[in-house]
Amino acid sequence: MRNRPIPEATVARLPIYLRSLLELAEGRGEMTVSSEDLARMAGVNAAKVRKDLSYLGSYGTRGVGYDVEYLLYQITRELGLTQDWPAAIIGIGNLGRALASYKGFTERGFRIKALFDVDDAVMGDEVAGLKIQHLDELKTVVNDEEITIGMITTPPAAAQEVADRLVDAGVRSILNFAPGVVNVPPDVNIRKVDLSIELQILAFYQQRTQAIAAAREANRRLGGPR
Amino acid sequence: MRNRPIPEATVARLPIYLRSLLELAEGRGEMTVSSEDLARMAGVNAAKVRKDLSYLGSYGTRGVGYDVEYLLYQITRELGLTQDWPAAIIGIGNLGRALASYKGFTERGFRIKALFDVDDAVMGDEVAGLKIQHLDELKTVVNDEEITIGMITTPPAAAQEVADRLVDAGVRSILNFAPGVVNVPPDVNIRKVDLSIELQILAFYQQRTQAIAAAREANRRLGGPR
Repeated sequence: MRNRPIPEATVARLPIYLRSLLELAEGRGEMTVSSEDLARMAGVNAAKVRKDLSYLGSYGTRGVGYDVEYLLYQITRELGLTQDWPAAIIGIGNLGRALASYKGFTERGFRIKALFDVDDAVMGDEVAGLKIQHLDELKTVVNDEEITIGMITTPPAAAQEVADRLVDAGVRSILNFAPGVVNVPPDVNIRKVDLSIELQILAFYQQRTQAIAAAREANRRLGGPR
Repeated sequence: MRNRPIPEATVARLPIYLRSLLELAEGRGEMTVSSEDLARMAGVNAAKVRKDLSYLGSYGTRGVGYDVEYLLYQITRELGLTQDWPAAIIGIGNLGRALASYKGFTERGFRIKALFDVDDAVMGDEVAGLKIQHLDELKTVVNDEEITIGMITTPPAAAQEVADRLVDAGVRSILNFAPGVVNVPPDVNIRKVDLSIELQILAFYQQRTQAIAAAREANRRLGGPR
């Protein structure tokens, strides 16, 4: 059992550190990383990096930094990524198909084991090496394949029913890509992926860039300092 | 010009508040919201909500909370979502197709105006009402359609070249869905969407749930307190 529970905000940053460390290890072959460099890559400040990593019992070495490989191991273990997570995707439209063959999942231990839909036109079609099955088979397949994670990629109107069926089948972790609110019992973890969040952050900075350019242009026309 | 620059971390939370407020306004027809309720929905603490919103000049009313509609307006304006953002998608595989018809984008002012690929087999195909064009047309179309945002949904190996072409065409905001590192000049904003981040956070909690269940089971077998 853990001595000090890891705060939710820290948990949310661990995958970001993991991605940065993988870039360092695979891309540049770096052996160590300072909290400042890791902070820059992850878009937070260095004090937060040190605090976050202290929850894993990782403190780095003064003047040297953190050992990249060991930190990778610690975060991977902490996130539970040293084990395989069998997952199912429900709703095999374009997004479901994209996720079924998304390399970022398998690299991190998420194995897509089953695909479900209700549309007779796609039933039995093969996507990423898996046959699309009818949603009515969900409970049996979840049991047989020991599926622990369900990903909902249906149209919004179907999301709640699919969530109910996943819960009924015994799935306790749900990732919802469908817009809108989905309710689950308190013992079920549900997280939402909103594909427009990063786009909104981008719009903020684009707007600022345009405002600065417009101010410069106005200043130029008025003959002010350049 | 703004008096107090908004910190990056606050900018990143504004879309989360926006989503929560939309749920309140559309789903439940709520007129006001307390910082505690908004904090719970957004998964942060109430002090952080109050601090974040203070950057927008929003302080709420003691005992009443924040006016939902007005806060919606303030955040929408701050994020630059009161204007339309013409965007292009490059790489029209499953993910590109999913994004081309993703409702969450248009709802927030992001208009997909053009689709590009290099595969002759899909050239001229229509997706979400748009014809797929060859990447060689990028510069002309960006200019004609005044495209400000480029979304990269190509395989990883093509991402850097597509980013270079977007920059060359004058695009200064890029959203990259392809795994791997893409480099752009300092005056270009690039953000990355990693579809596995939320899944990793989910795995952390699932792992914890399983550990607790295993501990309870062991305790039960040993005849300890229930």
